[in-house]
Amino acid sequence: MDSTTVRNEMEKTNRIFETEVVGKGDFTALKNVYTKDARILPPGAEMISGREQIQTFWQQAAAAMGVTSVKLRTVDAEILGDTAIEIGRAELGTTHPTSPTVVKYVVIWKREDGAWKWHVDIWNAVS
Amino acid sequence: MDSTTVRNEMEKTNRIFETEVVGKGDFTALKNVYTKDARILPPGAEMISGREQIQTFWQQAAAAMGVTSVKLRTVDAEILGDTAIEIGRAELGTTHPTSPTVVKYVVIWKREDGAWKWHVDIWNAVS
Repeated sequence: MDSTTVRNEMEKTNRIFETEVVGKGDFTALKNVYTKDARILPPGAEMISGREQIQTFWQQAAAAMGVTSVKLRTVDAEILGDTAIEIGRAELGTTHPTSPTVVKYVVIWKREDGAWKWHVDIWNAVS
Repeated sequence: MDSTTVRNEMEKTNRIFETEVVGKGDFTALKNVYTKDARILPPGAEMISGREQIQTFWQQAAAAMGVTSVKLRTVDAEILGDTAIEIGRAELGTTHPTSPTVVKYVVIWKREDGAWKWHVDIWNAVS
């Protein structure tokens, strides 16, 4: 799998998060975003393991922060076989003035069942 | 290089950060911790690129937070050739009661000039 193909597959997954998960509020679409054993490390909370727990987290967090939209931008990506390392930046639209609107992140990607998905996901605010 | 050897080398690097950098306040020892082109993604700030800029960041941050000690614990590590992915937890001793005392992190490691060093470093607080 050449790197352009992988990058395209990664973009597809990121668009699912933007459009299906956040845009339409369909949190079941997270099965197409995170690996089964994925882990997230959200600011101000302990690490969360497993896709079901991650889905619960996102449903609650999106509601709590009043997230209405998200735009993910890959700043840098390195592909190592079935693993990829992405540094990125997310811009959030929220209804709460105190929620962070720009976030930077590192995602470790894995190819699982033929699709590229987020396997480790950590982020924090830029200000 | 087998995984036990790599893990031992990673432990050595983490001990340098604990003992030399934070313990003795010798920020020049960061040359043995970060790769030359390393990037850090600190909470509440933009990404910082390059070891010299990272050294400046840590000097200022350690002073601002009143950091007196740090203990790094590897929660999980995956080795992929000359790259490794670590999930970890840091416990900080600080003189400022408002500074975070427990932090979780993801570090992307690279082998550079024969030594294993931090290449991408992102963290956030657990609470």
